[in-house]
Amino acid sequence: MITQVSPAGSMDLLSQLEVEQLQNTASSELYQLYRNCSLAVLNSGSHTDNSKELLDKYLPFDINVKRRERGIKLELINPPEHAFVDGQIIKGIQEHLFSVLRDIVYVNIHMENSTSKHSNDPTHITNLVFAILRNAKGLIPGITPNLIVCWGGHSINAIEYQYTREVGNELGLRELNVCTGCGPGAMEGPMKGAAIGHAKQRYHQQRYLGLTEPSIIAAEPPNPIVNELIIMPDIEKRLEGFVRMGHGIIIFPGGAGTAEELLYILGIMMHPDNKQQPLPIVLTGPKESAAYFESIDQFIGDTLGEEAQSLYQIVIDDPAEAARIMNKAMPLVRQHRKDMEDAYSFNWSLKIEPDFQMPFEPTHANMADLDLHLDQPKQKLAANLRRAFSGIVAGNVKAEGLKEIEAHGPFEIHGDSELMAKMDVLLQAFVAQDRMKLPGGSAYEPCYKIVQ
Amino acid sequence: MITQVSPAGSMDLLSQLEVEQLQNTASSELYQLYRNCSLAVLNSGSHTDNSKELLDKYLPFDINVKRRERGIKLELINPPEHAFVDGQIIKGIQEHLFSVLRDIVYVNIHMENSTSKHSNDPTHITNLVFAILRNAKGLIPGITPNLIVCWGGHSINAIEYQYTREVGNELGLRELNVCTGCGPGAMEGPMKGAAIGHAKQRYHQQRYLGLTEPSIIAAEPPNPIVNELIIMPDIEKRLEGFVRMGHGIIIFPGGAGTAEELLYILGIMMHPDNKQQPLPIVLTGPKESAAYFESIDQFIGDTLGEEAQSLYQIVIDDPAEAARIMNKAMPLVRQHRKDMEDAYSFNWSLKIEPDFQMPFEPTHANMADLDLHLDQPKQKLAANLRRAFSGIVAGNVKAEGLKEIEAHGPFEIHGDSELMAKMDVLLQAFVAQDRMKLPGGSAYEPCYKIVQ
Amino acid sequence: MITQVSPAGSMDLLSQLEVEQLQNTASSELYQLYRNCSLAVLNSGSHTDNSKELLDKYLPFDINVKRRERGIKLELINPPEHAFVDGQIIKGIQEHLFSVLRDIVYVNIHMENSTSKHSNDPTHITNLVFAILRNAKGLIPGITPNLIVCWGGHSINAIEYQYTREVGNELGLRELNVCTGCGPGAMEGPMKGAAIGHAKQRYHQQRYLGLTEPSIIAAEPPNPIVNELIIMPDIEKRLEGFVRMGHGIIIFPGGAGTAEELLYILGIMMHPDNKQQPLPIVLTGPKESAAYFESIDQFIGDTLGEEAQSLYQIVIDDPAEAARIMNKAMPLVRQHRKDMEDAYSFNWSLKIEPDFQMPFEPTHANMADLDLHLDQPKQKLAANLRRAFSGIVAGNVKAEGLKEIEAHGPFEIHGDSELMAKMDVLLQAFVAQDRMKLPGGSAYEPCYKIVQ
Amino acid sequence: MITQVSPAGSMDLLSQLEVEQLQNTASSELYQLYRNCSLAVLNSGSHTDNSKELLDKYLPFDINVKRRERGIKLELINPPEHAFVDGQIIKGIQEHLFSVLRDIVYVNIHMENSTSKHSNDPTHITNLVFAILRNAKGLIPGITPNLIVCWGGHSINAIEYQYTREVGNELGLRELNVCTGCGPGAMEGPMKGAAIGHAKQRYHQQRYLGLTEPSIIAAEPPNPIVNELIIMPDIEKRLEGFVRMGHGIIIFPGGAGTAEELLYILGIMMHPDNKQQPLPIVLTGPKESAAYFESIDQFIGDTLGEEAQSLYQIVIDDPAEAARIMNKAMPLVRQHRKDMEDAYSFNWSLKIEPDFQMPFEPTHANMADLDLHLDQPKQKLAANLRRAFSGIVAGNVKAEGLKEIEAHGPFEIHGDSELMAKMDVLLQAFVAQDRMKLPGGSAYEPCYKIVQ
Repeated sequence: MITQVSPAGSMDLLSQLEVEQLQNTASSELYQLYRNCSLAVLNSGSHTDNSKELLDKYLPFDINVKRRERGIKLELINPPEHAFVDGQIIKGIQEHLFSVLRDIVYVNIHMENSTSKHSNDPTHITNLVFAILRNAKGLIPGITPNLIVCWGGHSINAIEYQYTREVGNELGLRELNVCTGCGPGAMEGPMKGAAIGHAKQRYHQQRYLGLTEPSIIAAEPPNPIVNELIIMPDIEKRLEGFVRMGHGIIIFPGGAGTAEELLYILGIMMHPDNKQQPLPIVLTGPKESAAYFESIDQFIGDTLGEEAQSLYQIVIDDPAEAARIMNKAMPLVRQHRKDMEDAYSFNWSLKIEPDFQMPFEPTHANMADLDLHLDQPKQKLAANLRRAFSGIVAGNVKAEGLKEIEAHGPFEIHGDSELMAKMDVLLQAFVAQDRMKLPGGSAYEPCYKIVQ
Repeated sequence: MITQVSPAGSMDLLSQLEVEQLQNTASSELYQLYRNCSLAVLNSGSHTDNSKELLDKYLPFDINVKRRERGIKLELINPPEHAFVDGQIIKGIQEHLFSVLRDIVYVNIHMENSTSKHSNDPTHITNLVFAILRNAKGLIPGITPNLIVCWGGHSINAIEYQYTREVGNELGLRELNVCTGCGPGAMEGPMKGAAIGHAKQRYHQQRYLGLTEPSIIAAEPPNPIVNELIIMPDIEKRLEGFVRMGHGIIIFPGGAGTAEELLYILGIMMHPDNKQQPLPIVLTGPKESAAYFESIDQFIGDTLGEEAQSLYQIVIDDPAEAARIMNKAMPLVRQHRKDMEDAYSFNWSLKIEPDFQMPFEPTHANMADLDLHLDQPKQKLAANLRRAFSGIVAGNVKAEGLKEIEAHGPFEIHGDSELMAKMDVLLQAFVAQDRMKLPGGSAYEPCYKIVQ
Repeated sequence: MITQVSPAGSMDLLSQLEVEQLQNTASSELYQLYRNCSLAVLNSGSHTDNSKELLDKYLPFDINVKRRERGIKLELINPPEHAFVDGQIIKGIQEHLFSVLRDIVYVNIHMENSTSKHSNDPTHITNLVFAILRNAKGLIPGITPNLIVCWGGHSINAIEYQYTREVGNELGLRELNVCTGCGPGAMEGPMKGAAIGHAKQRYHQQRYLGLTEPSIIAAEPPNPIVNELIIMPDIEKRLEGFVRMGHGIIIFPGGAGTAEELLYILGIMMHPDNKQQPLPIVLTGPKESAAYFESIDQFIGDTLGEEAQSLYQIVIDDPAEAARIMNKAMPLVRQHRKDMEDAYSFNWSLKIEPDFQMPFEPTHANMADLDLHLDQPKQKLAANLRRAFSGIVAGNVKAEGLKEIEAHGPFEIHGDSELMAKMDVLLQAFVAQDRMKLPGGSAYEPCYKIVQ
Repeated sequence: MITQVSPAGSMDLLSQLEVEQLQNTASSELYQLYRNCSLAVLNSGSHTDNSKELLDKYLPFDINVKRRERGIKLELINPPEHAFVDGQIIKGIQEHLFSVLRDIVYVNIHMENSTSKHSNDPTHITNLVFAILRNAKGLIPGITPNLIVCWGGHSINAIEYQYTREVGNELGLRELNVCTGCGPGAMEGPMKGAAIGHAKQRYHQQRYLGLTEPSIIAAEPPNPIVNELIIMPDIEKRLEGFVRMGHGIIIFPGGAGTAEELLYILGIMMHPDNKQQPLPIVLTGPKESAAYFESIDQFIGDTLGEEAQSLYQIVIDDPAEAARIMNKAMPLVRQHRKDMEDAYSFNWSLKIEPDFQMPFEPTHANMADLDLHLDQPKQKLAANLRRAFSGIVAGNVKAEGLKEIEAHGPFEIHGDSELMAKMDVLLQAFVAQDRMKLPGGSAYEPCYKIVQ
């Protein structure tokens, strides 16, 4: 089956040179990257979180970029059927296909030279994150602060899922917008809820912003409700994107990925330069999940201490309250940006140390080398713990990680025994609560080994 | 508590004379009508279907129309709290308030003279229905046929409700719009579902059209998803509005009101002049409701015969199929309108006999006088049965009906014993299945007595 | 030649009854009215100001309203060629055709009953003016005061015309909108100028509002720049429309019509109730026209006195200053409306006496009966002088007036000799300066005789 | 005087790095370039075509880019007064300021690296032209061919100017858009005319596209009617922009610049690969200018021959016909692009030889070195003649050219005597007709010497 798809949303003109570079040639890595992200987007709505499985299933899929009189067209060869309704591609998915194209062209063709030159320079990393978001029209200058980042697991239970929808509805009723990592579970619920809340308020600047990365998009394909999709080059730039764009953060129950996100933002907010940053952080869930938050809070207290704990609020079973906390903080965020002469749409003044910016590659060696001891500065510890959880996410659902694990067995994580014991408890709880992988497949096989 | 509300949606300028006529004066019937409809709209989301209960609960509520420099404002005194989020009125409800104002002003001030003169003339009735819908901007000339009327009970079970959402989603994915009587249950589900389907398709001409009437709006207040609310003067003009605006009809499980609607459309479609009308009619529900449709189908077969049965299709447990039938019929509807030089937005060529147009007042005398015998022309029988069920709806949930029943006891329904037996069976099933009234209050007390 | 024209702008749905009433039947006066106004609009750009001439030239012209699937269509039979470019009707003219339809239907079909009943009641006249303007969407609630009424002759010289463009440009640069009687000369120049000024300011709410009446539209057809055309039933309602909608008034050189307008607004503004009305009035022209304004000012001083003179400013040869005076007054107008709780879009609080509202029919008898003596209250005198000039305009260019004059010779105007002498001087100056009729035809033959 | 200006139109977010590079530092060439272009834009409406004069006049002018919470702001220090109305900057000029910023940032910051590497590669030049236009949103994919390039002198007489407006009006009435070099005279008239024509047609996709370059923008600042301003790096890329974007070309009377443009397009269209290109070229003017076109046509015939003459049509005194030729060619252009699978918005398939792409620097040495002999291939000759006229334009009005001439006296142009004689005749006619420079200043002093 071959279908032609017209541009929707952004990106509808390519130069001859750009088209050439995207062609499917035997050796083209760029084409593979582009093809796989496109396939992931077309797979929205499938129920697997295993990137490899997905890619293996659609081996005969191909995509060609064609220049035509009204701009470019995409030719899809053997695309997944569920992207279509009665033979017509779903418009939301169509837009996402062109978002993939836009970001791949920008990052991998235009930025290629300049990036490589400066890839270790923090200023250039931040400027690159800005440039990608701006090119994707993700930074909208006129809008006052209203973007709430929602983090949480892709694998959550029905009660938790319903709760995320209710929080979304309450955010929507307050005309707040939603940004998530775009996948199922806690990344989808708040958007669906907000869509209903926005409809009730006739709110037409609604944003359901999905921030993803090539290595995870196949495991967590964007829901078609996502009306802005941006593909950042790696998890570190994606996380930087979240925290520089977001004006508030809500964290729902989740597994290793959610722990990574929480450690990331706490590590940053603990930096003395960020003391004045008025970023509201709320951990919230239904009353059935109260215990979950207790154990997370305990782990943070034990590792990063009370100061870290003071950075967030825990709200149990009160969706309106969670939304209200965000809403009340918006004028403070706004005022702070004005005082700092900083942009509403991008928090330049947030200090992010290189420790949190430099890409961490989750190889066995790197995982084994992590410095996981309690007697180091809290921020350092947060950065290292973040890396540890990041590696586990990769081993669970990212294509490269899965391959690594398949080839060499589970990662080994070393550290002082007190810390290792705490991590072990937390991770086992994640496993027991089905937070590591979507249930329904085979039983979860840990991709890591805690070595005490 | 006093709040001022600015115009949203249509209707933001009134003349001095119009404002005067809407003032709250001791004797003003118009003010009472206007106030009660406004209160109903503010009550969206409450969980009662008893108009009297609602009106009694908010006795201190008042509404004043004020002229101001930018147009009019509404002053609300003691409005229901759940119309507000953190003290701000929900925009959808705000729009509905002004829709109420628009229709009350148009029908009860502007049309008053001309209407009364011609109230028994069928041509004038149809022209009045047209004029009300046009004034409400409900007739959109540019749009090709895509408006699906969804009928069904306000009191349905959770499985049925979920099913109506799925049908709505499938309609939305095919860029079809939804029109219902605007209330809970089967009037809400398809709209919520369609809202998600439309969002996936980035469909921006979405219409969630609610057609209601003053006597039922309090029992079935419009959901805030409704983005067009139109208040027709009575049930007969409301039904005429549905069938002249709609391009297809889906009927979900329901009680007396749904039976009224089904009898109405069958009675009309059986008219020889309507033979060529390509209006698709689908009765659909989840597999758990299959028996319900069997009994309805049986009743239609027994009373109106096979010809009537041939006018609809029954689709069990297949939301996509229900939507696909509608979608496939749209080009036929379109072609037929072109051939007849008739408007896409209003089906002038549909023949509606005065029997279906003349208002039926559900008094005890009128109910007792109904000619309910099997040996009359099928169309006549359909018209009379329609009146019988209409009376029962009034006795169940409409304010006037409730008052009648309170004063004089249940309506008595006479007829030949064969027909009465069949009605009895059907009505008892409705009662048993909780379709007559929202469950949760006291047990349902029938408002009618079948006299064989 | 037969052409079908689709709706543009407003009015695209008519009921069966409305279409019937517009049909061309032998005896239909409504059809004649409708046809003639439509013909006038199609004649935009012709260079005659003689209504009769125009109507005689296009005797075979016909127009039929047809109902079609997407709304109505107009069928034009033998329309004037210059309304078309390469066979396509000019879009601005197309819109005007539907404005004509809209206002004819509203005033002559819908308002017919209610109007006739109340035609002598001042409150009802004002409410009718409001209702017509609202139905035409001419009252835009959100907009703060910025509508400048420009009055002046249809027959002005090239220097004056260029000056009106420059004033228009200066108004446009200040984002002020323009309302005129829509015809050539001083009614066109400010609009063209404002269009350029608005373009420079990227101002997208630009309004070039033309207010006309059936009896003059053929002599002064709307320029296609006019983007809102409203046809008031008669000159008195048209004048009331101007002064209730406008937020400031600029008067350019002109003839009898301009004198009528000036007397109208002065007569109203001299009413004690209007003392607080902050309406700016500027008389302006190029330095070459200074003498013209001196003689007008003299006439006003001699007849209505200093108080009347104090109501306006004369600005010679300074387009920016004229615009600046208007612009500076807008905040005052705005504040006054707020203080009075009056609408920005319609000045309800302006007091207009019945003397200025009641239609004056320019027959020989009525003209002869006018009470033109200096020893009467100034306001009365203004009202009577207004009628005298109104009659002269009719005799010069309006179809009915022209017929009257053809049949019975010039109107006779009586009054005390002092006043008559002054009028004679003024009128002779208008004649000498070619202000009575477009030059180029035969020499101007006065339609009046001053009888001292 | 210091004013802050907010973004309008495109470009409202800059990164920290971009802002840094635009700062006014002693040595910054980029700042000088940016400042001078901004000053030129602010000078719109001034009546000088001498770049140096302008720059000298506003020495104390400064511009600073500031990052603020809603994006960037520009701080203007001592800007020219005529860019303001009552202290407010004219919106059209405000937009142009941000267009300057956008193009300077894109070309001089982003493209800098990649460009320099490939600056001699024709493919890269075309891709760069494309990239600049795309970044400026000048390439609109959805629109079918309708962009008419109008070339002609900045210094033309009043009759010619009025004629260009009439042609513009006729283009506008046919819903064609206009692209010029943006300056006074024949670059302004067609835009003003088209603005009126578009208004009559209610055409809302109107484009008044100005393509300019840093070295000429001060001499020919964009009129505020220009609603898209794009600054190409040099004249060769600007010319390539014109011919790849335009779908038809109209050439009005003009001087050396117009001759350059005509030679450029003829040289390209004579290439065998462009035989099938359906680009309509019309030379047109009022009857008073007939002799001008005869002499141009003669010169082309004498130098490039009949084949070149066959590429254009000359239309005298018929604005509608000129517009009609363009309009009729549009479907052919459209079909050709479809057949070639080429973009409507950018003519990739037009072959342009490096001779026409490589920048020609108008120094005395380069001018003296030009190979101006009749016995060379016609295309080569066209390219060399183009360079000669390009040099004269620079010597007449461009800042660098003026400096060169001031320092070293007039350019010397060598060639075979037959050709030199023809050029001399043509150039003397330009001088005699005031086409070289705006009249009103001192008498025109030729910047060249023909050496036979």
